[in-house]
Amino acid sequence: MQAYNFSDKIANLKPSAIREIFKSLTDPTIISFAAGNPSPESFPVPDLERLSADIFKNESTSALQYGLTEGYTPLRCDIEKRQKEVFSIGKDFDETIVVSGGQQGIELACKVFCNEGDTVVCEDPSFIGALNSFRSCGAKTVGVELLDDGLDTEALERTFKETHPKLLYVIPTFQNPTGITTSLEKRKKIYALAKKYSVIILEDNPYGELRFGGEEIPTIKSMDTDGIVIYCSSFSKILSAGMRVGFVVAPKEITTKMVVAKQAEDVHTNIFFQMLCHKFLTECDLEAHLQGIRDLYRRKARLMLDALDANMPKEVSFTRPDGGLFVWCTLPKSMGIDCEAFAKKALQKKVAVVPGSTFNCDTSAPSLSFRLNFSTPSDEQIVEGVRRLGEVFREL
Amino acid sequence: MQAYNFSDKIANLKPSAIREIFKSLTDPTIISFAAGNPSPESFPVPDLERLSADIFKNESTSALQYGLTEGYTPLRCDIEKRQKEVFSIGKDFDETIVVSGGQQGIELACKVFCNEGDTVVCEDPSFIGALNSFRSCGAKTVGVELLDDGLDTEALERTFKETHPKLLYVIPTFQNPTGITTSLEKRKKIYALAKKYSVIILEDNPYGELRFGGEEIPTIKSMDTDGIVIYCSSFSKILSAGMRVGFVVAPKEITTKMVVAKQAEDVHTNIFFQMLCHKFLTECDLEAHLQGIRDLYRRKARLMLDALDANMPKEVSFTRPDGGLFVWCTLPKSMGIDCEAFAKKALQKKVAVVPGSTFNCDTSAPSLSFRLNFSTPSDEQIVEGVRRLGEVFREL
Repeated sequence: MQAYNFSDKIANLKPSAIREIFKSLTDPTIISFAAGNPSPESFPVPDLERLSADIFKNESTSALQYGLTEGYTPLRCDIEKRQKEVFSIGKDFDETIVVSGGQQGIELACKVFCNEGDTVVCEDPSFIGALNSFRSCGAKTVGVELLDDGLDTEALERTFKETHPKLLYVIPTFQNPTGITTSLEKRKKIYALAKKYSVIILEDNPYGELRFGGEEIPTIKSMDTDGIVIYCSSFSKILSAGMRVGFVVAPKEITTKMVVAKQAEDVHTNIFFQMLCHKFLTECDLEAHLQGIRDLYRRKARLMLDALDANMPKEVSFTRPDGGLFVWCTLPKSMGIDCEAFAKKALQKKVAVVPGSTFNCDTSAPSLSFRLNFSTPSDEQIVEGVRRLGEVFREL
Repeated sequence: MQAYNFSDKIANLKPSAIREIFKSLTDPTIISFAAGNPSPESFPVPDLERLSADIFKNESTSALQYGLTEGYTPLRCDIEKRQKEVFSIGKDFDETIVVSGGQQGIELACKVFCNEGDTVVCEDPSFIGALNSFRSCGAKTVGVELLDDGLDTEALERTFKETHPKLLYVIPTFQNPTGITTSLEKRKKIYALAKKYSVIILEDNPYGELRFGGEEIPTIKSMDTDGIVIYCSSFSKILSAGMRVGFVVAPKEITTKMVVAKQAEDVHTNIFFQMLCHKFLTECDLEAHLQGIRDLYRRKARLMLDALDANMPKEVSFTRPDGGLFVWCTLPKSMGIDCEAFAKKALQKKVAVVPGSTFNCDTSAPSLSFRLNFSTPSDEQIVEGVRRLGEVFREL
């Protein structure tokens, strides 16, 4: 057999630990807090079923034929309108394009800006899918510590000075993995620093529609008077994750390049589901649907936080998110156990959590934290799973 | 406004001329031979409609939720089985994965093997989408002349010696843009040369199921005893192009890397349509469906070739394909007009063709050829459009 000479960027890239965990969760007796999936209850199945039948009846040819790389025009208009209304996003110089999930928006942003060896600055910890996108483009990921109210902006400025990065990647709202929301003040500071050091901000907002507590905070993109913010989001958490429909709002000069790169990647995103999204957004009650998801996640998050309060020793800290899918737990140093050992012990009790080291920009750095997902487990699983995590602590 | 500092690989990449032509074809009075689309008659709409309703009824949660990057397992098994039966493809070391259209398979192959500056050798002319994929990964495309029976293998060996390429990209069956099919002898020679010079072959076979004449010729992948062939194909030309479902068969060591790169690109391919493909392949009569498409294209190709025989001067040569979607016409040097000028004159008569220069590996090289598509225009449009092309010649 041939010995393969893979590209430098791919040779050392590991599959995402989360998706590997997801693959191994075939044992139905395991309570999984490891997923990043939306609740299946968040998929509006009867509406999608009815609208699909309509498409087959009335527009099957265009739904099944090649389409435009930029996306299905009516859907692009819907997105533009909603992003403007809800998140104050979209200046005259901006354009909205459809991508195959927010993930593709992230990867394309890196591809159009980064040569091999260029730097992308990230919150540390950050979304493993994005980190791997940057690595798969041959970019270096450099982390800046994420504090309770967002990035450590002094460290951010130092890093900008030292590394001359092309991109800064942030998830300011209900961050993955931590659930942290960046304060308004910090968002302004981040924007000012990016402008000062000529860094493009890649703002990822997959959970923005899932706020179940606290006050709305303006997106960084809404402050973008200079054309330096690429904004990515998707329908994965509100209509269907499996359909892979996301979008990007960015200056037209940038989206034009992203479209050329996308054309070379998958020609365009599944047209049928783009039409389905358009029909849902225009013919169904999106607000009522979102309210249902928010109510569901508020209840589940509360259940998990109450269980953590009841079962965890005082020394263990955890975030109290106002939205999204995740709670982030941190062990005290004094316990003398890192997250991977903890996750292993939890799995012996048939509870799956994701060790925090997975999300580190520096893959060799240890972590005292782990991520818990509350959107997919049942109420009973949340209560029982957290009880077992408490047992793990008491046994240590 | 910010001045953007794009990556080298993307800065000079132009959008595909074809997709730009496709965008401009909003004038319904233009007869288009410019598309690369399958006929809408090739989409089995009633079957897909019925099977979609079944999925919503019985499997909606898994159809709408995140899935595995490698693809929906039952579909991967269907593909593996059919490729083995029909094309003798798949050794013990091979693995089948699902990708978002054949295009993604091509791009991922380049990404996992090529560093920026590495060389991909291509048939000249070749599929513009693939050429742009290689360019978007920062690879150099080097062309080797495509003769009537496949690559000029002497030139191929010289090019292998001179450029030490990572990949050789070929479409041996009903090539895009020429319609040429590589002979069995040449396929064997190409395999032997790739083995001798340690080059990985990327065999693209999007039209393999569309043979309407001549004898089946073994794929290069069927000769792959050494694990040096990556095989890409898709359902775009036989079920739906807009759904973006394709596949790759390659040594598992390679697909493992492609899966990691795909995860960072779009997580996975639309699950609903993967399930739909699986249901179609297992519950419907694929052979009867394919026979219908082949009969349709045989008739349309014949109609176009007859019209070309009747309307073109003897000096104009054209290919007579045994399958696929395209006829390739070449003007005599003596006419003193290149393909772009010809295409411009044709458009004045409201007929769109794609100038051959679009498909050149060296984008600045001129061409005397143009590509005609026979799958999308109606019978009347084929007859009338070719008549007008004849007029263009007579007027020159």
